Amino acid sequence: MSAIDGLIANNRTFAQSLPERHLDVRPSLRLAIVTCMDSRLNVFSALGLKDGQAHIIRNAGGVITDDAIRSLAISQRRLGTREVMLVHHTNCGMQTLTDDGFRAELQAATGVAPAFAIESFVDIDADVSQSILRVRRSRFVEHRDSVRGFIYDVDTRLLREVHVEDEDPH
Amino acid sequence: MSAIDGLIANNRTFAQSLPERHLDVRPSLRLAIVTCMDSRLNVFSALGLKDGQAHIIRNAGGVITDDAIRSLAISQRRLGTREVMLVHHTNCGMQTLTDDGFRAELQAATGVAPAFAIESFVDIDADVSQSILRVRRSRFVEHRDSVRGFIYDVDTRLLREVHVEDEDPH
Repeated sequence: MSAIDGLIANNRTFAQSLPERHLDVRPSLRLAIVTCMDSRLNVFSALGLKDGQAHIIRNAGGVITDDAIRSLAISQRRLGTREVMLVHHTNCGMQTLTDDGFRAELQAATGVAPAFAIESFVDIDADVSQSILRVRRSRFVEHRDSVRGFIYDVDTRLLREVHVEDEDPH
Repeated sequence: MSAIDGLIANNRTFAQSLPERHLDVRPSLRLAIVTCMDSRLNVFSALGLKDGQAHIIRNAGGVITDDAIRSLAISQRRLGTREVMLVHHTNCGMQTLTDDGFRAELQAATGVAPAFAIESFVDIDADVSQSILRVRRSRFVEHRDSVRGFIYDVDTRLLREVHVEDEDPH
């Protein structure tokens, strides 16, 4: 049995145990969260989120890519969110590779190098700061006065906030 | 108090209630799930997932963008996953807009149109099929023989599989 078959069976049980109620497509906390795809980060549990409260955007690293900006723009301009919470985490897989190395690996395996950035990073605090600035400086994101960044420790399971001064000299 | 402050308080409680144990960065089910940012989709609960089992990639629509391919490539080539599970859902916000309309809206609001596709869709089944094909045809994703797509009903909370024949005439 594949892993997916197991999850389909789990879903059958899940659907039987809960009452049907229709929640609105607009998140009730008016919040969007951007975080890593990491398997140890159960966002609902770790943040005490309830169904219907916040958009959850996840990718390798939890970095702000064009796709994250696309999602945030739709989240804010069409679905009413106002705050943005960014969460990176300790022991991240993105710290185990480099952009040059992984691009070369993809080229060696497939014959072509990707047209997108790999978004590897070394320093988690610096990458959270970078992600905060990318949101703050994207006009496609309508509301940028409440963008905050955090690091989740996968062992203690605690959040730590990262503060960044946006001097914006340019 | 902002929504984020509330979640930080929730996280303090969460971290106290669980024992510290270190889980591996490599997902134990060797599975990556790509799904929508929708606030009503608690992936861990709906699929009976446990911490450490699967990568979770989420964006507006759960569509396969370059960023999703980037994440899947890293998930498979560096972190050992083999299966890919795609989950769209009913009552999706992406069905309420069009690419042309939202691009025009962004241009009117900011002065410039985005360089990325909006990825709106009308027919959920067709969009799941499209996402399956995008993964199957991307060589950056190493393992493409177990890519399956589903639609999650936000009211009944049940998954339904979408099957697609990949004739690949080109």
